[in-house]
Amino acid sequence: MSATDCAACLHRWPDPACRIADLGPAVLYLHDDQFFPGWSVLVLKRHATELYELAREERSALIEVVSRVAQVLAATYGARKMNYALLGNQIPHVHWHLMPRLAADPAPDSPVWSVRHAPLRLASGELAARAAAIRQALTA
Amino acid sequence: MSATDCAACLHRWPDPACRIADLGPAVLYLHDDQFFPGWSVLVLKRHATELYELAREERSALIEVVSRVAQVLAATYGARKMNYALLGNQIPHVHWHLMPRLAADPAPDSPVWSVRHAPLRLASGELAARAAAIRQALTA
Repeated sequence: MSATDCAACLHRWPDPACRIADLGPAVLYLHDDQFFPGWSVLVLKRHATELYELAREERSALIEVVSRVAQVLAATYGARKMNYALLGNQIPHVHWHLMPRLAADPAPDSPVWSVRHAPLRLASGELAARAAAIRQALTA
Repeated sequence: MSATDCAACLHRWPDPACRIADLGPAVLYLHDDQFFPGWSVLVLKRHATELYELAREERSALIEVVSRVAQVLAATYGARKMNYALLGNQIPHVHWHLMPRLAADPAPDSPVWSVRHAPLRLASGELAARAAAIRQALTA
C-alpha cells in the first residue's frame, strides 16, 4: 500500500468528527468505539508502514508525542495502566492506539482486544465534549 | 508495584530459557507462547511502569531497540506487518510485545489477542534454535 491508496492519507479514516488535536508529526483522534473511555488513536501525518521506516529523529519525535498523550490520558481518566499499540493490520499506516485502562474496566488485566463487547459510538455532542476535554488537558 | 515486588526485576519472568539477547537498555526474549512464530518480548532492564516515566534520551534509546528488533523479526519471518505493543496490565514493568504477523497466520487482519488458540510451548531444543536464529540475525 502507498499513500495514493491509504485510507489515512486519503483522509477517509479516522472520522474527522473524532479529531482531537494536531500534535506536530501526528494527529490525535478519539477511537470511534468508546467502550473503553478515552481510547485514542495517534496517526502519523506522512505515509509509513513500519516504525523502522522512519528516520531516527522522526521516530524519537513521534515517541515523544506518544508519551505526552499517554501521560495526559492517564491523568484525565485516572488510568490504572496505559496501553500502547502500533498494529496496522487493517490500515498499514503508522498509528498508535493509546488506551487508558481503568481499575473499573471489565477486564483490566487483559488486552482490550480480548474483551468482547458491543462498540460504543457516542452521540456527536458527547464525542465533541470528550475530544475537547482531552484537547484542553493537552494544552494545560 | 516497585522493583522489589516486580516479577521482571526479580527475574521470575520471562523464563530464562526464552532469552535471546542483551540489547543495551533492554533484554529480548521469545514469548513463551509461539503460536505466532517469532513473537518476542523486549524487557527494559530497569523498573518503570509507563513510557512517560523514562527520560527523553532513555525513551529514544529504547524505541531504537524496538525498531531494530522489529526490522530483524520482519525480515527473519517474512512478516506481512509487524505489531508492537506495550501493555503491562499483568506485569507493570515496561516491556514490548513484538509480533511478526504472517500472511498465512489464522487472522492477519486482527490483533493476536482476539485470536483464540491453545498456547504453543516449544520443546527446549526448538526454543533454543528459534532464539539462536533471531540472535544471529540481530548480529548480522
